Amino acid sequence: MRKAVADLHAELVRYNLVAWTAGNVSGRIPGEDLFVIKPSGVSYDELTPENMVVCDLDGNLVEGEHSPSSDTAAHAYVYRNMPDVGGVVHTHSTYASAWAARGEAIPCVLTAMADEFGGEIPIGPFALIGDDSIGQGIVETLKGHRSKAVLMRNHGVFSIGKDPKAAVKAAVMCEDVARTVHVARQLGEPLPIPQDDIDRLYDRYQNVYGQRSPR
Amino acid sequence: MRKAVADLHAELVRYNLVAWTAGNVSGRIPGEDLFVIKPSGVSYDELTPENMVVCDLDGNLVEGEHSPSSDTAAHAYVYRNMPDVGGVVHTHSTYASAWAARGEAIPCVLTAMADEFGGEIPIGPFALIGDDSIGQGIVETLKGHRSKAVLMRNHGVFSIGKDPKAAVKAAVMCEDVARTVHVARQLGEPLPIPQDDIDRLYDRYQNVYGQRSPR
Amino acid sequence: MRKAVADLHAELVRYNLVAWTAGNVSGRIPGEDLFVIKPSGVSYDELTPENMVVCDLDGNLVEGEHSPSSDTAAHAYVYRNMPDVGGVVHTHSTYASAWAARGEAIPCVLTAMADEFGGEIPIGPFALIGDDSIGQGIVETLKGHRSKAVLMRNHGVFSIGKDPKAAVKAAVMCEDVARTVHVARQLGEPLPIPQDDIDRLYDRYQNVYGQRSPR
Amino acid sequence: MRKAVADLHAELVRYNLVAWTAGNVSGRIPGEDLFVIKPSGVSYDELTPENMVVCDLDGNLVEGEHSPSSDTAAHAYVYRNMPDVGGVVHTHSTYASAWAARGEAIPCVLTAMADEFGGEIPIGPFALIGDDSIGQGIVETLKGHRSKAVLMRNHGVFSIGKDPKAAVKAAVMCEDVARTVHVARQLGEPLPIPQDDIDRLYDRYQNVYGQRSPR
Repeated sequence: MRKAVADLHAELVRYNLVAWTAGNVSGRIPGEDLFVIKPSGVSYDELTPENMVVCDLDGNLVEGEHSPSSDTAAHAYVYRNMPDVGGVVHTHSTYASAWAARGEAIPCVLTAMADEFGGEIPIGPFALIGDDSIGQGIVETLKGHRSKAVLMRNHGVFSIGKDPKAAVKAAVMCEDVARTVHVARQLGEPLPIPQDDIDRLYDRYQNVYGQRSPR
Repeated sequence: MRKAVADLHAELVRYNLVAWTAGNVSGRIPGEDLFVIKPSGVSYDELTPENMVVCDLDGNLVEGEHSPSSDTAAHAYVYRNMPDVGGVVHTHSTYASAWAARGEAIPCVLTAMADEFGGEIPIGPFALIGDDSIGQGIVETLKGHRSKAVLMRNHGVFSIGKDPKAAVKAAVMCEDVARTVHVARQLGEPLPIPQDDIDRLYDRYQNVYGQRSPR
Repeated sequence: MRKAVADLHAELVRYNLVAWTAGNVSGRIPGEDLFVIKPSGVSYDELTPENMVVCDLDGNLVEGEHSPSSDTAAHAYVYRNMPDVGGVVHTHSTYASAWAARGEAIPCVLTAMADEFGGEIPIGPFALIGDDSIGQGIVETLKGHRSKAVLMRNHGVFSIGKDPKAAVKAAVMCEDVARTVHVARQLGEPLPIPQDDIDRLYDRYQNVYGQRSPR
Repeated sequence: MRKAVADLHAELVRYNLVAWTAGNVSGRIPGEDLFVIKPSGVSYDELTPENMVVCDLDGNLVEGEHSPSSDTAAHAYVYRNMPDVGGVVHTHSTYASAWAARGEAIPCVLTAMADEFGGEIPIGPFALIGDDSIGQGIVETLKGHRSKAVLMRNHGVFSIGKDPKAAVKAAVMCEDVARTVHVARQLGEPLPIPQDDIDRLYDRYQNVYGQRSPR
């Protein structure tokens, strides 16, 4: 899990989701009340399985020489309150954060959005760092929602998944559709996809398609 | 052909046409009713000639350890119905998909578009994955059309060519002109190119110029 | 310090802040009235600790085979007038320079901006190269201001920090937020963050958070 | 010269000025009525000093196994009619081509534009490939103009320089300022720079500054 989490940060860099050190991935350790997360203040080039840190579900450092990411409390809150979540990702990726700055959900006007998110990508509340506000905002918004990503108002994106790789995929796809829908809307109104078709696409992608192998 | 198709996926990555695994290249095996296509759920870094899969023209797996791409039915339909096509590419590249989300064809306002596409890049219908709808939409739109690329509504791009390399070139050029015309229109109306000049440019590029060597 | 300054130019390239040779980093030599700066006319690939040049606080060349950067006078003026500054960076990064071309400050509508800049990123005056005008404009604007970056009108960005790395971080974050706020405003008005919350975020990031380790 | 021209194509790729094979660099051989240019249909990865081709000033192939670039006639016309030009570059770079598609000159609202181009970057006529029309359009527009780059209507950019490196620099800077001014204008009107100041900046950059060393 340390290696998986360390390596997945390279995907954030590859897809241009992060500037400097402003983004992080965590992964729940299966069968234990612990998760692995990025250390604070370490650049993406320097991440190794060894310098990743381990925290308990209250966000307390259990193992590691560095402090955990400053976003650890939000990750911990999600693991505590969403037992099926095995991975969490946070970024300030440009297009998704722009929707977040306006407080606008991304409408589902692409089949790839219907597949991955099952509809719109929702907006979470404005919340300050320092206590459980951000975690609460994420959980309130995503619990029972099809979307695996939430746009936290004036802040950025949190995404979840059954494991850290799925959460990273959701973060990558979130920025990809945020950008495409933004570009589409710059020159007019994108055509809506009927709700029935969104449901059919989502159902197929999550079930029929998923039974064979991950895409 | 396995090696050619495997290698050409690197061009999709290099030109930023794909996020995660959302894009695929296929190539008809000359003289046989078979084509090579990307396996499903394998990342671009891991593609090798060996793990590419071979399908018949109904999209059934003939050779390979992985399932074929979830877009295989659309590729197969094109090969079945357009005998001159030797390569097919599918992407959700950002700018082309943005035109597709609005259901708008890209007008021919660049000489490079006249050269490569002979006019506008057309819009195909909205179609759900799961049967031949997507394939039919591609073939209906491109049969008899100069353009080698079609923008499938609310979805993305399919491009065709005499071989997989030509189809990849069409996919790259489609995104390039989709971006340039988008940017041009953000600040006003691009100047039209008279139809006569479009015809002359297309004719020259496909004939006079093409007789010597591929560009 | 020569090595630190030489290496940090690679971050300007990595984050796409510079075209050709149009950007430079400098660093004050601790305890001396000297600073290290990029040589003029040397490409980023060719920078080494050895070819960096050393200047006194009037911008005169003290050590080095090349002329110092053509922006040396502005760097020198900052070091002379802001004794706490240990690093200065100059770029023409696209989005920040676009705000500068309109003479508009970047409003603080992202929590990352509140953290790093403590509010808006201000506009400095139009100033010609050749004397102390640019340096004066930077110092006038940033002295007593929370922001570590200034958008010089019709020109580009200057950023400062306690050392060259902090100044590079400010330059990277400045372009990142310039881009995100630009994109947000393309489709509507970003939501404001209340001043109290900006103050709380800035205070926490600079103090509580900063006491443990740099992010 | 073969090596210089071959290597400079890598800068077109590095700065994202070209898609597929749509861009080329040439360089006059000092003291001879000959120039080196990119071969047609060879990808940028495969360019070597050996496969570059040599043409006379009428654009006829003098040395080389490949056909010269399909844009050779335009390069040749420039060398024939502008004896001080030692390098020519052609691209379809996105932002510059977008201005060209609207037939709009790029206004000089950045000090970097005043430095490098001495004012606006002008528009050349619409011209078809196949005879001297493109070359004539370039020469008519740039002869006696400060700008080293011209936006050919509905087409792309040609830039010139005393040698191929200077022409590549002009192509890189042209796209850089085309992008920044585009972005600036998306959200309002950039502030003008007074003509006197443009003149002063241009004069300094070309003379005082130039006497010491290239930037």
